[in-house]
Amino acid sequence: MSLTGTYDPDNIFARILRGEVPSVTVWEDDHVLAFMDVFPQSEGHVLVISKTSTARNLLEIEAEVLTRLMAAVQRTARAVERALSPDGLSVMQFNGEAGGQTVFHLHVHIIPRWADRPMDGHAQPRMADTEALKAIATRIAAALD
Amino acid sequence: MSLTGTYDPDNIFARILRGEVPSVTVWEDDHVLAFMDVFPQSEGHVLVISKTSTARNLLEIEAEVLTRLMAAVQRTARAVERALSPDGLSVMQFNGEAGGQTVFHLHVHIIPRWADRPMDGHAQPRMADTEALKAIATRIAAALD
Repeated sequence: MSLTGTYDPDNIFARILRGEVPSVTVWEDDHVLAFMDVFPQSEGHVLVISKTSTARNLLEIEAEVLTRLMAAVQRTARAVERALSPDGLSVMQFNGEAGGQTVFHLHVHIIPRWADRPMDGHAQPRMADTEALKAIATRIAAALD
Repeated sequence: MSLTGTYDPDNIFARILRGEVPSVTVWEDDHVLAFMDVFPQSEGHVLVISKTSTARNLLEIEAEVLTRLMAAVQRTARAVERALSPDGLSVMQFNGEAGGQTVFHLHVHIIPRWADRPMDGHAQPRMADTEALKAIATRIAAALD
């Protein structure tokens, strides 16, 4: 998989943004959406995406979109830390299939880590319970500054 | 390891920034330094750090420093892609020991990935040859826009 290519407007995150596929929102504004990963690598695994850009990856994203996206990642990470008190947070952003990317709309993973729990594999087929994700999203949203 | 704490001015990256410890620079300006990871998880593994902030992690970093840092990560990632033509790029930023962090000066990993090569483990004790790192750094620097 090359790092260059054409944006697929029917990728799953584009469909979420159009409301065609349900997702569990943590928070959003006109520019970004933070939502729960349905294949969480740990409890509280959140994804942050741009609503305005069709960048597939970090190489393509517009400077101002990257700034807004990372500010949103920071805001979300702080809320995750307050809400869930993990021992650590792994932030990951994958580019290209060989880089670990499975959805080709740029996204940043915020993965809470606990010293006594291993992280699950990326995008393994173990979908989380929606009600459980909603409960965690509500806790994180309540901790936003 | 908690996510809050005090910045240790003798961490290895602070010592690199003061010139007390050698490193292989890819590029730098007044705000950021991009340099080769001496424990590379793949060929061309680059780290990008702020020169001006004493943030230990993403929760602490000042908004404008984060903006500059991520612009530098993007610039570096584009150069890595041009220079080394990897199949993918994994971008990682670890917070807290449980989150994978080993040096407590905020840093972003840019790890080139190839479909036919597994990524090595993080911070394993297998130091790269300095001359080999210099050769790769020169190739990446030549590809900067």
